[in-house]
Amino acid sequence: MNRIYNFSAGPATLPTEVLEEAQAELLDYQGSGMSIMEMSHRGKYYDAVHKEALANFRELLNVPEEYAILFLQGGATTQFSQIAMNLLGEGQVADYINAGAWSKKAIKEASIIGKVNIAADCGSEIPTRQARQEELKLSPNAAYLHCCSNETISGAQIKEFPKSDAPLVCDMSSDILSRRLNVSDFGLIYAGAQKNLGPAGVAMVIIRKDLAERVPDSVPEMLRYTTHIANDSMFNTPPTFSIYLLCLVSRWLKKKGGLEAMEAQNDRKAAELYEAIDATDFYSGTAVKEFRSTMNVTFRLATEELEKKFIAEASAKGLDGLKGHRSVGGIRASIYNAMPEAGVDALIAFMKEFEQANA
Amino acid sequence: MNRIYNFSAGPATLPTEVLEEAQAELLDYQGSGMSIMEMSHRGKYYDAVHKEALANFRELLNVPEEYAILFLQGGATTQFSQIAMNLLGEGQVADYINAGAWSKKAIKEASIIGKVNIAADCGSEIPTRQARQEELKLSPNAAYLHCCSNETISGAQIKEFPKSDAPLVCDMSSDILSRRLNVSDFGLIYAGAQKNLGPAGVAMVIIRKDLAERVPDSVPEMLRYTTHIANDSMFNTPPTFSIYLLCLVSRWLKKKGGLEAMEAQNDRKAAELYEAIDATDFYSGTAVKEFRSTMNVTFRLATEELEKKFIAEASAKGLDGLKGHRSVGGIRASIYNAMPEAGVDALIAFMKEFEQANA
Repeated sequence: MNRIYNFSAGPATLPTEVLEEAQAELLDYQGSGMSIMEMSHRGKYYDAVHKEALANFRELLNVPEEYAILFLQGGATTQFSQIAMNLLGEGQVADYINAGAWSKKAIKEASIIGKVNIAADCGSEIPTRQARQEELKLSPNAAYLHCCSNETISGAQIKEFPKSDAPLVCDMSSDILSRRLNVSDFGLIYAGAQKNLGPAGVAMVIIRKDLAERVPDSVPEMLRYTTHIANDSMFNTPPTFSIYLLCLVSRWLKKKGGLEAMEAQNDRKAAELYEAIDATDFYSGTAVKEFRSTMNVTFRLATEELEKKFIAEASAKGLDGLKGHRSVGGIRASIYNAMPEAGVDALIAFMKEFEQANA
Repeated sequence: MNRIYNFSAGPATLPTEVLEEAQAELLDYQGSGMSIMEMSHRGKYYDAVHKEALANFRELLNVPEEYAILFLQGGATTQFSQIAMNLLGEGQVADYINAGAWSKKAIKEASIIGKVNIAADCGSEIPTRQARQEELKLSPNAAYLHCCSNETISGAQIKEFPKSDAPLVCDMSSDILSRRLNVSDFGLIYAGAQKNLGPAGVAMVIIRKDLAERVPDSVPEMLRYTTHIANDSMFNTPPTFSIYLLCLVSRWLKKKGGLEAMEAQNDRKAAELYEAIDATDFYSGTAVKEFRSTMNVTFRLATEELEKKFIAEASAKGLDGLKGHRSVGGIRASIYNAMPEAGVDALIAFMKEFEQANA
């Protein structure tokens, strides 16, 4: 077996230990004679996994009692409309910060459901960035304020979360569990799993339970947060194998020292990589420095031809998934929790070599 | 490794060969140095899997060109409302047949969206059954007629699909791919994967493309069938690992001889099991004979105490998951495609032993 360094933005690299454990028990989970994915979600084996995953994430993120943690399907993309269906009542307005491609998608879906006010718009600026508090034009009595904590495509990350009288709703798909977090500052946090949590096919939602009560009667049962809160995310058959992998990742995070240790490691990895980018004019970062993401490190070379060569040669050396998003081009190194420091070191070494050969 | 016979209703047993293949390549897919679940859904490896799965199911089910096959998230339960959101316009009525617990859930969700007419109601009858054509009270100009082809809990299966001038919409979660099917008879077919298709976390939808065009402007993009048709189920990140397993199951089905061979095997397994039930008065089937399911074989013993003993002793002999649904009790043996004939033989042998010891 020859594992490479996978810098893909998502679905993304997972801890090798997690995959090894899943592999070992794939056909016979704990001597049951069945795979965990073949078992009833109402049975004792899966029930223990489900509860452990919930408990571990509650502990890791220090989630207060008045918040529920939900495992839902449909990714963050389903949340874009589900949030508005549940929280944006008739005659109300929701504030949205547009900081890039993912903000825009959330805005587009919410606008089909209700009234949206763009509180700030830096979504098309280059260098890329997040909005600053002083530029926010907030609505009086907004239903909520929505932001995207880390724009995966542009590589711009919120360092200080916006403040508003309205509940803060945040898409944390690409940086949840990468740093410490004060959950009490938020009304709702959501994240597709396929970056920092596990495989694609499950989304985590953390919601202040009283907010969920806002849901209008016109919303189908399956799309109400109240339904999933009342049923502990077992209203319908959950994506059991995906949640099992989330559980293994949560154990791995606890073993690694939790979010404090993760944050320190992520800061270190990102700092080293940005240092390599800033060392010469050969590479140039694409995000405003104060908003540089610790998860998705985006940069450019002088020409698209050179970028193509960089990506191809890196791939040949076992550094894969470095191509920037098709909408913006350039290079993107996604260095989520599961990317080891050795992977970042290998990338930096390659960058130096490549520069020497091509400068 | 000691695999047992798993009669669970879903998530359910999967072909051992499929799990072995998934296990072998879990950390290194085709020499890529990555798991298939760690790869970008836009990359060449996953793209080939996605396309092969679609092509295999199109071939297996003989799906005509004017129909799209979609892989969606949220299970059949999300479809309950999504169907009504997309196909049931304002001022229209949809006909629903109530034949049991799953029909009822579909009706409940659709009723939140629009007007529902109960075309027939045999959902609470015991012995359990499906509706007959002559008892259907169809609405003139109905948006569609909805039925559930196999009520997983009651063990009652449609043998001849209902006829209506309206498009037929069918929940086939627990019997899709178990028998030959004329897709042209339907407007929309849907199925959660966790019985006959693969792991929980993905639903298959087969929809006549022109029907999808009915969708009102008020439906969010993510919940429109048109969105997923236009994007080949890649509008957002699909549940890649689940679809990879579906692809492996589709290959296994083709190798086994396709739906003709599956139907013959399923008929044989069910006939043998029902023969054992009917052989004496010790066991009694719970569904009307003409509607007996080939997938979920439901029966009772004289007392609940005896049923409890049956389930416990069977489990001790490696025959697991035989407990009936908590809402109805009794015994339920789910014998989906992946349950080998040897598993059914073992169950029948145990039934005879148990009867001799307890009659």
